[in-house]
Amino acid sequence: MRMAHLVTNCTFSPSPAVKPHSKSPSYCCNVTRFQSLKSSNLILKSCSKRQKKLFVICASAAVQGQTDKTQTPLTGNQQASGHSSSRPRKVMVIGGDGYCGWATALHLSNKGYEVAIVDNLVRRLFDHQLGLDSLTPIASIQNRIRRWKSLTGKTIQLYIGDICDFEFLSEAFKSFEPDSAVHFGEQRSAPYSMIDRSRAVFTQHNNVIGTLNVLFAIKEFSEECHLVKLGTMGEYGTPNIDIEEGFLTITHNGRTDTLPYPKQASSFYHLSKVHDSHNIAFTCKAWGIRATDLNQGVVYGVRTDETAMHEELSNRFDYDGIFGTALNRFCVQAAVGHPLTVYGKGGQTRGYLDIRDTVQCVELAIANPAKPGEFRVFNQFTEQFSVNELAKLVTAAGAKLGLDVETKSVPNPRVEAEEHYYNAKHTKLIELGLVPHLLSDSLLDTLLNFAVQYKDRVDVAQIMPSVSWKKMGAKPKTLSV
Amino acid sequence: MRMAHLVTNCTFSPSPAVKPHSKSPSYCCNVTRFQSLKSSNLILKSCSKRQKKLFVICASAAVQGQTDKTQTPLTGNQQASGHSSSRPRKVMVIGGDGYCGWATALHLSNKGYEVAIVDNLVRRLFDHQLGLDSLTPIASIQNRIRRWKSLTGKTIQLYIGDICDFEFLSEAFKSFEPDSAVHFGEQRSAPYSMIDRSRAVFTQHNNVIGTLNVLFAIKEFSEECHLVKLGTMGEYGTPNIDIEEGFLTITHNGRTDTLPYPKQASSFYHLSKVHDSHNIAFTCKAWGIRATDLNQGVVYGVRTDETAMHEELSNRFDYDGIFGTALNRFCVQAAVGHPLTVYGKGGQTRGYLDIRDTVQCVELAIANPAKPGEFRVFNQFTEQFSVNELAKLVTAAGAKLGLDVETKSVPNPRVEAEEHYYNAKHTKLIELGLVPHLLSDSLLDTLLNFAVQYKDRVDVAQIMPSVSWKKMGAKPKTLSV
Repeated sequence: MRMAHLVTNCTFSPSPAVKPHSKSPSYCCNVTRFQSLKSSNLILKSCSKRQKKLFVICASAAVQGQTDKTQTPLTGNQQASGHSSSRPRKVMVIGGDGYCGWATALHLSNKGYEVAIVDNLVRRLFDHQLGLDSLTPIASIQNRIRRWKSLTGKTIQLYIGDICDFEFLSEAFKSFEPDSAVHFGEQRSAPYSMIDRSRAVFTQHNNVIGTLNVLFAIKEFSEECHLVKLGTMGEYGTPNIDIEEGFLTITHNGRTDTLPYPKQASSFYHLSKVHDSHNIAFTCKAWGIRATDLNQGVVYGVRTDETAMHEELSNRFDYDGIFGTALNRFCVQAAVGHPLTVYGKGGQTRGYLDIRDTVQCVELAIANPAKPGEFRVFNQFTEQFSVNELAKLVTAAGAKLGLDVETKSVPNPRVEAEEHYYNAKHTKLIELGLVPHLLSDSLLDTLLNFAVQYKDRVDVAQIMPSVSWKKMGAKPKTLSV
Repeated sequence: MRMAHLVTNCTFSPSPAVKPHSKSPSYCCNVTRFQSLKSSNLILKSCSKRQKKLFVICASAAVQGQTDKTQTPLTGNQQASGHSSSRPRKVMVIGGDGYCGWATALHLSNKGYEVAIVDNLVRRLFDHQLGLDSLTPIASIQNRIRRWKSLTGKTIQLYIGDICDFEFLSEAFKSFEPDSAVHFGEQRSAPYSMIDRSRAVFTQHNNVIGTLNVLFAIKEFSEECHLVKLGTMGEYGTPNIDIEEGFLTITHNGRTDTLPYPKQASSFYHLSKVHDSHNIAFTCKAWGIRATDLNQGVVYGVRTDETAMHEELSNRFDYDGIFGTALNRFCVQAAVGHPLTVYGKGGQTRGYLDIRDTVQCVELAIANPAKPGEFRVFNQFTEQFSVNELAKLVTAAGAKLGLDVETKSVPNPRVEAEEHYYNAKHTKLIELGLVPHLLSDSLLDTLLNFAVQYKDRVDVAQIMPSVSWKKMGAKPKTLSV
């Protein structure tokens, strides 16, 4: 990303214990003493030869040399992949401060993986710029990590910087030496990518170049590292045939081949993921990279076992027209008495999954890595629903809570089929052991109650769609709406 | 592109006749007097509010207000598309100083189109940086255009700048108001994109963002403008089934749909074209852009009717390991007594076409535009050959000229199948009227003789492959080889 490297809520204080590496173009500083949360100041230090240009910060709230070895995951596959099993498996979670990334980082840490978060925190900047806010109050990444350490004793390392800056990314890879890199670090909103030309260009540049850099970093510094990349079910579009997991065996004019499933993405964001998939597939073939592309459906929910442990571990929950996904937005609408806003005819059908399954799926992918040179695609969702079906489910669940839920159709801001065939396969993660949380159970248990709990924080002005696929233009949208 | 905006061989002299538009953020300056080539200095003026940042130059060697109306092409399709037929059709040739672009610009100008070239001339910079040179001496773009005017009386407008700079591109679109935009303006070498990380990133950024900008410029300023985009047959890879033109009708589990043909590109360059194709297809659907994607094969040859008119109109001819395509390189090798270098087993089969057919195909696409919202794909080649077949043809043709041509296999620097099925359709351009020049005729008539004619200019050090797909790294290649 070309945006500023952000450092928030940090206390910068010189420490005699911090010794920058003398040969490195940027430095990673370890905090050598960790005290109890209340009495300590987390010491972060920015040390760079070109301070104006580059902030590379590694904030490790660890007692130096001491790592957590409990619950170290040791699967047959890991052993087969030739890694030493004598230390915890290291997972770099790129975009680990975001919605899926934060939940995943905590889950993996809890499961005994050694976790480092790499994030430039630009998602928080988007909220500032667009006048949006998470329904849930979220703590700073530094406080999140401190709280996690104080509650569990587990360390998460933190690298704050931009993966589009290869100098930064190189240092993070060389310093952490990941066994797996889970890559959530992309601009992930379709409407955001359709605001104006500059956001479209930002989205494709940021996502495509960031992923290219991750691939080069793996090739250069961690050749065995398994890339687990978040793709999207939106890469496939809505073809009139069954959607397979990444590949399709085609017989044509008497000959047969298994080829990448044809892609028909419908926003500059979704397209960026298509581009990533093609780039990654090529590097698996050309360089022997091992990669899993998780074509994820629409994620709903907010609580995972780990984020529920303390309010400072709370995950973000977006319900706005830019970052809020359909079901989460519906629950908030139901909670505040706003009609559920169905875009167009509401026949748009997609795959959905609970965020508790997101973290489970990523863990399964890591624990069962792709082989060197393998480009593997899993469709990561558990159930498929049309928007109208979601609206009905929320209405019925709302009634049980005494909420009078209405639905209204609003003009569809997107360009998409509103009535179409949809049948997407999703068996590979089930075969690896995924036990899904189903929406029918989650809706009342957590989702709707959660929205009701926080309803006083809802800003109704954020709910309606503000971005039009057809009307977007080259002119920068400078006015916040 | 992030590279500097280049202005070469220009005489900057103030002229009282040049009056910058007062409201424009950058200015297009017209030369109001055109004198005979030998006595005139072409007057170019750079006028910018932010002179350090932006050079926008429109050098029009025209008598102001006078346009060439001879041979104005008026096809039934053009009239049907709702355009006025009372003025020459305007074609913007992006990348018009390059190998295919220059030949196309002259050809279209000769056919009565009003042509503007948009180019940042960065292809000339690549040669400087890599220590390469065209076999043919090529004149500056300014001298090329002057010579064309003096020989034919026809004007080609010139916009020097970078299409990744949307401010520049906007001005070019608003000023020229093209009916068609032929987009050759991309980094077009697979080996260049595989030199190192920075060239890979440059290639994808430059090509993808440049094309996005062209799409936004069309949407914003020239909604009716037909985009004719140069893709590549390399987008398809080498599947084990017949290659169709852009789309494939697939029956799967009892249902049928026509979907984009699956893509398997094999370099960061080829991938950038895949990304472009997906982006363009989306904007046709979402915005109603009319676009033709010309998936071009390997182009050979150098002389077209127009470039043959004068040595200052000569096209470039690349035979080096980075920009030289297989057949052109073989002819140069034969001319200088260097063994033909077959990469690996030589079974690699591709589609090929004469550059005289490139210009014909582009003209056919322009004269028969896509409908609004249509994303049309033509496979633009005339014959397919394996590398071994090419080597045999060149050897036999060389013998007729008294050349003793040897062939040797060198380790394949690429990652590609060396023996594979290949059968690609290419009927759509034939149906529009393409009359191909076949290799068997061209090889002796023009290609090999041409190489012999210029053999004293050959730098043998440029011939061998210097870029390895597998060994490329993140580290910048700074040493010229």
